[in-house]
Amino acid sequence: MAKSCIGIDLGGTFMKFGLLNDSLQVSGFFQLPTPTDRGPEGVIEEMVRGARKLIQDQDIKSSDVLGVGIGSPGPIRQAEGIVIAMPNIPCIRNLPMRDLIAESLGIQAVLENDANAAAYGEFLCGAGQGREDIILLTLGTGVGSGIIIDGKIVHGSHDIGAEIGHIIIEPGGEQCGCGQQGCLERYCSAKYLALRAQRMIEAGHQSSMKEILTINGTLTSKDVYEARQTGDRLATAVWDTATYYLALACVSICRLFDPDEIVLAGGLSKAGDELMQPLRRHYDTLHWKLTKPLTRITITKLGSDAGAIGAAGVAWSKFGRINIPNAAEPLII
Amino acid sequence: MAKSCIGIDLGGTFMKFGLLNDSLQVSGFFQLPTPTDRGPEGVIEEMVRGARKLIQDQDIKSSDVLGVGIGSPGPIRQAEGIVIAMPNIPCIRNLPMRDLIAESLGIQAVLENDANAAAYGEFLCGAGQGREDIILLTLGTGVGSGIIIDGKIVHGSHDIGAEIGHIIIEPGGEQCGCGQQGCLERYCSAKYLALRAQRMIEAGHQSSMKEILTINGTLTSKDVYEARQTGDRLATAVWDTATYYLALACVSICRLFDPDEIVLAGGLSKAGDELMQPLRRHYDTLHWKLTKPLTRITITKLGSDAGAIGAAGVAWSKFGRINIPNAAEPLII
Repeated sequence: MAKSCIGIDLGGTFMKFGLLNDSLQVSGFFQLPTPTDRGPEGVIEEMVRGARKLIQDQDIKSSDVLGVGIGSPGPIRQAEGIVIAMPNIPCIRNLPMRDLIAESLGIQAVLENDANAAAYGEFLCGAGQGREDIILLTLGTGVGSGIIIDGKIVHGSHDIGAEIGHIIIEPGGEQCGCGQQGCLERYCSAKYLALRAQRMIEAGHQSSMKEILTINGTLTSKDVYEARQTGDRLATAVWDTATYYLALACVSICRLFDPDEIVLAGGLSKAGDELMQPLRRHYDTLHWKLTKPLTRITITKLGSDAGAIGAAGVAWSKFGRINIPNAAEPLII
Repeated sequence: MAKSCIGIDLGGTFMKFGLLNDSLQVSGFFQLPTPTDRGPEGVIEEMVRGARKLIQDQDIKSSDVLGVGIGSPGPIRQAEGIVIAMPNIPCIRNLPMRDLIAESLGIQAVLENDANAAAYGEFLCGAGQGREDIILLTLGTGVGSGIIIDGKIVHGSHDIGAEIGHIIIEPGGEQCGCGQQGCLERYCSAKYLALRAQRMIEAGHQSSMKEILTINGTLTSKDVYEARQTGDRLATAVWDTATYYLALACVSICRLFDPDEIVLAGGLSKAGDELMQPLRRHYDTLHWKLTKPLTRITITKLGSDAGAIGAAGVAWSKFGRINIPNAAEPLII
């Protein structure tokens, strides 16, 4: 029986499970709710139960599983397999997650930051397949990111690298929860795009979104997206500002990493061409003139599955050898 | 006889030569003027003559030289050994420098960008010795940079990475020659720091530097440094602005690469503590509060020798195996 690796993407709401074989075939995808109220033991138990269910569902033996890759929200100590803290599960502190999972399953395991795992998924069998250097930006509540250079994940010397959401894009700009001012994520995450529209309406600007805000008490990036579709001027301006800052970040990413590809994921990426068109316009304008823009900007191919697929890929790269095919599409069976 | 590698650092004014053995001992350093008026053939001839002189001076045989590393201003095509253009020697275009040098000397050669070579020099036996991830920023006419991750030089997918001087630090800011606005180097290179002071005086601001400007028609960063030492308010403000933007860049470098060390070189770094004190103050203020600042900022140890030492180091990493000692200091004999 050919070997496979299990990928687990641990989120604050759901944990996702999937199997990846050495030909990059993905199978058996499912998710379970994350039992945030059951403490660290409950979370570990549920991860182990999910992995066992995957093995059973796929009708394989534990001995056919080469390793388990776990993608976890940070901060983590990657080399030691320890989750230092989890924003959505406050009871988790300095948890040796890798070893607890490995011991319970009797299968070797590896821990990775969830955004890094997602970037590795896109690199292995998503929008970045066949490339060597890719950057993933996840435009959701914040801006998550993963950096792959020469096919390897960049962790940094203290496991706190690849936080592109916290580069300072606007000196002296908006206060961020991290303590800095002007962080990228305050300008182009889905959450802060909506919050910017909300603030402007509260400050007296006219918009068709005013009614939604009055009824719901808050706005979402989808509200802004839809209002922009109907020609709402405030929504159009806010959307444009977000894509402007995202383009600024893409230009600086090119100057630093000169990657093959910048892959966009997360809530805002679902806007597709409505995101990409203004973004590419700003990118072309802001980019230097010494060369034409050589780095492609694209939308995720794996979507929210990237984390689990990438986590399994990280296990492959740690414990075995994967055959990267020339196929442009991931093989999902 | 133990093997050595030759390093050549090709500059617009001088070319430097040095020998590096496998214990990181540097020897035989000298420089020759770059014959910018003798065309590509003249430059190549002089590089070959310098290499032969080094071999003769050091009383070794050609066969004891494992390889030649060449650090050249860019842009270059690293893998192919081609210099696409050189800002200071306009007659050089698409020159297969690596192969021309290798054939003339009968010794294998490798071409590297000069800033990358300098970063590799600091990594191997300078301020970054014993570290894995370091970033070099050279604060001179512009801001040059080299990025070392896991002991390897980051080139990017199209050989145009590691241009930290051209990250956009101030959206909509000063126009840069590259076509972008708000590039880092317009805010904290030695040249632009002086130009900022000059512009402010020309705009009517009071300063003790006014007389120097009237006499010389221009200011240097040294003029600003010296005026600041005497308490000149304009010089103090301009110096502070430059260190503020440099600190902003250091914070974003930490968020992206989380390196062990950021090494500062070039003209401004000669100010030593006068540069480091305001820089560290801004860095500590601007840095996030999620962790204390973990990345050290230091001044170059190799100075203007870093390029040639690093170029020889690049040859070692390409053609042989170097023994990195635990010594904190480079062994210069």
